[in-house]
Amino acid sequence: MSHILNFRLIIKIFGSLIIVESLFMILSAIVSIIYHENDWYYFLETSLVTSLVGTIGVVVGRKAEKTLGRREGSIIVTSVWILFSFIGMMPFWLSGAIPSFTNAFFETISGFTTTGASILNNIEGLSHGMLFWRSLTHWIGGLGIVVISLALLPMFGFSGIQLFGAESSGPTKDKIHPKITGTAKRLWLIYTILTICETILLHFGGMHWFDSVCNSFATIATGGFSTKQASIAYWNSAYIQYVIIIFMLLSGINFSLYYFLFNGKTKKVKDNEELKWFLGLTLIATILITFSLINFHKAISFSSLEKTFRDALFQVSSLITTTGFGTVDFMQWKPYVWVLLLILMLTGASAGSTSGAIKMVRIVIVFKYCYYEFKRIIHPKAVIPISYSKEVLRNDVVSKVLAFVLLYIFIVGIGATVLSATGMGFLESIGSMITCMGGVGPGLGSVGPAGNFFAIPDISKWILAFVMLLGRLELFTVLLLFTPVFWKK
Amino acid sequence: MSHILNFRLIIKIFGSLIIVESLFMILSAIVSIIYHENDWYYFLETSLVTSLVGTIGVVVGRKAEKTLGRREGSIIVTSVWILFSFIGMMPFWLSGAIPSFTNAFFETISGFTTTGASILNNIEGLSHGMLFWRSLTHWIGGLGIVVISLALLPMFGFSGIQLFGAESSGPTKDKIHPKITGTAKRLWLIYTILTICETILLHFGGMHWFDSVCNSFATIATGGFSTKQASIAYWNSAYIQYVIIIFMLLSGINFSLYYFLFNGKTKKVKDNEELKWFLGLTLIATILITFSLINFHKAISFSSLEKTFRDALFQVSSLITTTGFGTVDFMQWKPYVWVLLLILMLTGASAGSTSGAIKMVRIVIVFKYCYYEFKRIIHPKAVIPISYSKEVLRNDVVSKVLAFVLLYIFIVGIGATVLSATGMGFLESIGSMITCMGGVGPGLGSVGPAGNFFAIPDISKWILAFVMLLGRLELFTVLLLFTPVFWKK
Repeated sequence: MSHILNFRLIIKIFGSLIIVESLFMILSAIVSIIYHENDWYYFLETSLVTSLVGTIGVVVGRKAEKTLGRREGSIIVTSVWILFSFIGMMPFWLSGAIPSFTNAFFETISGFTTTGASILNNIEGLSHGMLFWRSLTHWIGGLGIVVISLALLPMFGFSGIQLFGAESSGPTKDKIHPKITGTAKRLWLIYTILTICETILLHFGGMHWFDSVCNSFATIATGGFSTKQASIAYWNSAYIQYVIIIFMLLSGINFSLYYFLFNGKTKKVKDNEELKWFLGLTLIATILITFSLINFHKAISFSSLEKTFRDALFQVSSLITTTGFGTVDFMQWKPYVWVLLLILMLTGASAGSTSGAIKMVRIVIVFKYCYYEFKRIIHPKAVIPISYSKEVLRNDVVSKVLAFVLLYIFIVGIGATVLSATGMGFLESIGSMITCMGGVGPGLGSVGPAGNFFAIPDISKWILAFVMLLGRLELFTVLLLFTPVFWKK
Repeated sequence: MSHILNFRLIIKIFGSLIIVESLFMILSAIVSIIYHENDWYYFLETSLVTSLVGTIGVVVGRKAEKTLGRREGSIIVTSVWILFSFIGMMPFWLSGAIPSFTNAFFETISGFTTTGASILNNIEGLSHGMLFWRSLTHWIGGLGIVVISLALLPMFGFSGIQLFGAESSGPTKDKIHPKITGTAKRLWLIYTILTICETILLHFGGMHWFDSVCNSFATIATGGFSTKQASIAYWNSAYIQYVIIIFMLLSGINFSLYYFLFNGKTKKVKDNEELKWFLGLTLIATILITFSLINFHKAISFSSLEKTFRDALFQVSSLITTTGFGTVDFMQWKPYVWVLLLILMLTGASAGSTSGAIKMVRIVIVFKYCYYEFKRIIHPKAVIPISYSKEVLRNDVVSKVLAFVLLYIFIVGIGATVLSATGMGFLESIGSMITCMGGVGPGLGSVGPAGNFFAIPDISKWILAFVMLLGRLELFTVLLLFTPVFWKK
């Protein structure tokens, strides 16, 4: 690995990436114009300035050597999220749609990291252009993370995610791999097809095209920003809610499994343990919550039972996939359900999907690891390898998974302490940390489904913005930048 | 390892152990007689029956082979705690001091596991004999765990605790080691000396002999049962409170360090990393909490500052050592302090002490492990061993530590879910799990320092009783009995 950072290449890549963002922004300008709103100006302004700066970056870096090491990878992946958020917040802030700088940044990074935690008190007050851009940040962020985790990170040797079901990219290479473009294109295709399918199905259910598109962006990215203050409860339709449930669950599946499916490699899909655990946990949690919600002292009608089941399934699917959509305020349910839901917010769905949090695969590996530790007590000399999806896991992969889960939990604990020191309540501190680390959206208490993050202190918002990034990029990529060993020659 | 359990030996050991318990019970009968109370009858009755049964056990097992394997070790260590609690609860239950069977068992196992969680609403209502027995269960349990963790478990090859500072006992042997009696005797001596010193110092501060003895039992065992409903707040004396603080901290230190100290091996004490972390964390938490309690808008006098500092230090020492004594109701402090205190209740103090919870050594190893994982990302091929107290840790030791910490956290999560399903509140479920797993005592909310466990459902009490045992015996010893691999021939 080279010890001098390839700054020219970093600048070039940043340049190209923000040009892409500026193009997406033009889409929002078009939406504004279609709806005869004046906001197009702010989108166009930001877009022009951004693409100008981006072009300069590309020109400056045009002669850069094409050697991209792990360290450059870490810096780019972390910084691009921050850069995108600072640019992406401009239309909200300049137009006065979100007058506070902190709030505008919080809302935007919450979008790009597909968290969905909001500071908005009156979502319907935003123009169509702004709402579209808000949902689009989810969609860009979701696509970004799938491409990064399945195509980009494997190149930098960040094993840990990509080994589970995704195409193995062979030993680490310090050059940009030719396969990356191919993989990224296929992922983009799957992602777009899913979004289009959901949009059409939602529209068939009576949702306006505009809302269908925006809510599909938020579903496929497992983001959670809706176009209505009441979230999905606004559409009081079983059909619409089931469609969203199905697409939330589909978005919680490792995207490479779709690729395998299209290529007829059904065995790879069948052997995938993570999928079974993810769907199994969804089912069990739904049944437990449905039972806890049924009032057995009253007569139970089919329609009330269906509604209860749907509410439970919706909430479980929404939180395990870290989407964060709501049809009910789960704070009105029993504390028992809160604890169950918090656990789902910690586990998350599959690696290689748009969902956040720890991910099922890691939870499963940790459980296996602990169980095998018992075997080792009885048979201290036996070598017992951990197998997963019918393959034996390498020691360094298991090692990284354990470190990840432990770090994740520690950071939640330390973060909750820091947040409570800023004056937030007990439920709010713990709820905010879990929801922002996992990229979910709603927390507990006043930041629960019926509330939002508007009233928390500004300093807490900046901390949580960092936490969203940390969780989205799976800790190591970001934290590495804070270790002396990273900067040491 | 033999596959047929040596039941005769198990029965013999059980027999001898319950005879020891019955002798301790006679002490309580004597206290009753001194105070002219009628309770001596219940102690004597239980004691006689127990020693009779014990003698039968010893006679039945007299010809047992002296081969004690790991599996027998697991069964004995787990069962003896349950057995002691069922016998130990009898005086409370038969005398009607604690009329409910569940409550009497909960109080007794809370005593033996040195947890200190109580169901009593009126502690002063108990006779001297009963109060003495209640405190004595702590003392017996505390001594038991020190002997088990430093002398007994190493013999069975349960590495993980004993390797840190304690005398290494060499490779696993399946026979009772001759060294065990020697080690146990020395530990008993240190334990008794500490208890006597505290008793004398407390009495000098104006505490009655009876209260001095009982509170010393509870301090050295890091138990937390006091003889007063108001706990240590009853003695509104800075001297008494500082004495208790010092002895709580002394009881949180690995007992083998005292042994090293008496033998002039000061280097071993100086090199001990756990001690530094334990005292360092105590100091930092005390400073943070003191600052959060100071009202900077008012004039600060020295005496009010001292009181604030003392309250903070007392609470920190009490919770990090998992004692659970109180001088204030920390639920009246800010949520920020709750979170800090919860973290201390999770970390605990040193391995090889009477304190419970995860233990500092494991936390330190986990942090090192996570940090080294970053180094490995940068230098994937480097072999980086983890060193602790200037010694390199074996891989299987690190492995067991990681499994322990992960299991601990998972069990807290799962347990909180189950408790909330029995109808307990959110704060209560989480607080009870953390406090009972760690052997602390007070939880959060209605089971906080100002409350107790009287009102929670009976089923929750039985669950928490099991959890206390699980935490006290460091998970593996108990959980092993539930794995198929343990019973498989």
